[in-house]
Amino acid sequence: MSMELAVEEAKKGMKRNEGGPFGAVIKRNGKIIAIAHNTVLKEKDPTCHAEINAIKKACKRLKRFDLSDCEIYSTCEPCPMCLSAILWARIKTLHYSSTRKDAKEAGFDDSEFYDVFSGKKKSKLKVIKQKTKNSLFHECMEKEDKVLY
Amino acid sequence: MSMELAVEEAKKGMKRNEGGPFGAVIKRNGKIIAIAHNTVLKEKDPTCHAEINAIKKACKRLKRFDLSDCEIYSTCEPCPMCLSAILWARIKTLHYSSTRKDAKEAGFDDSEFYDVFSGKKKSKLKVIKQKTKNSLFHECMEKEDKVLY
Repeated sequence: MSMELAVEEAKKGMKRNEGGPFGAVIKRNGKIIAIAHNTVLKEKDPTCHAEINAIKKACKRLKRFDLSDCEIYSTCEPCPMCLSAILWARIKTLHYSSTRKDAKEAGFDDSEFYDVFSGKKKSKLKVIKQKTKNSLFHECMEKEDKVLY
Repeated sequence: MSMELAVEEAKKGMKRNEGGPFGAVIKRNGKIIAIAHNTVLKEKDPTCHAEINAIKKACKRLKRFDLSDCEIYSTCEPCPMCLSAILWARIKTLHYSSTRKDAKEAGFDDSEFYDVFSGKKKSKLKVIKQKTKNSLFHECMEKEDKVLY
């Protein structure tokens, strides 16, 4: 039922040309708390994937950044950006339908990005490590009223 | 100069307890078009990392999801979520200061997530692949007015 809702949500976004054919649903205690689709085209923002949009909605609704009591349903295996967001949100369970291979065949780069992370492929991004260090982590660790997340 | 600005921005956010000690700056043609810090605590949203916030700001400003003519300066080596966002935004060059090892020592999970992607470590996330396929990619490929991104 949750996956069917995610698929319907993806269709809605696709029909309106708001983004790619992706939808996501977040559930907590058996209750749906967020439904979202990809809005990359509508928002002109490459981070507006269905899972990111759903996580943002769920956090806004629950007023917390920790979704460790939640499950996410995604119409496709999440790209590395969304999988990392799911990990940062501490979501418990991920359900997905299509695979990164299906996404690749449809022209989406998810699979290529996975290959960058596993070391199989080099990305076109030029990466420059600066020689000088900054003192931010040191200042953070010294901070008495710091909040961990 | 750009990295110094990113460090100052990170300090501002940290002092206000808006998020972790991270800042980012995006430049286009030598001109700064976005400055942002981590706002995970302020927004109660685990996706509000400095790089994601900066990409969102830059896209809003340029009114496009493609930042292939831009460079990003980050006070720390981006986590997999932010590195993927940088790849999706097609940013040309990434400059960073602290490393994922420094982040780990300060208590941030970036390094652990990299190990999940490289296969060195298993995440706690339970992943369930659904058996039934959906027709979304097929419908998308058949769509005559589709926009690629």
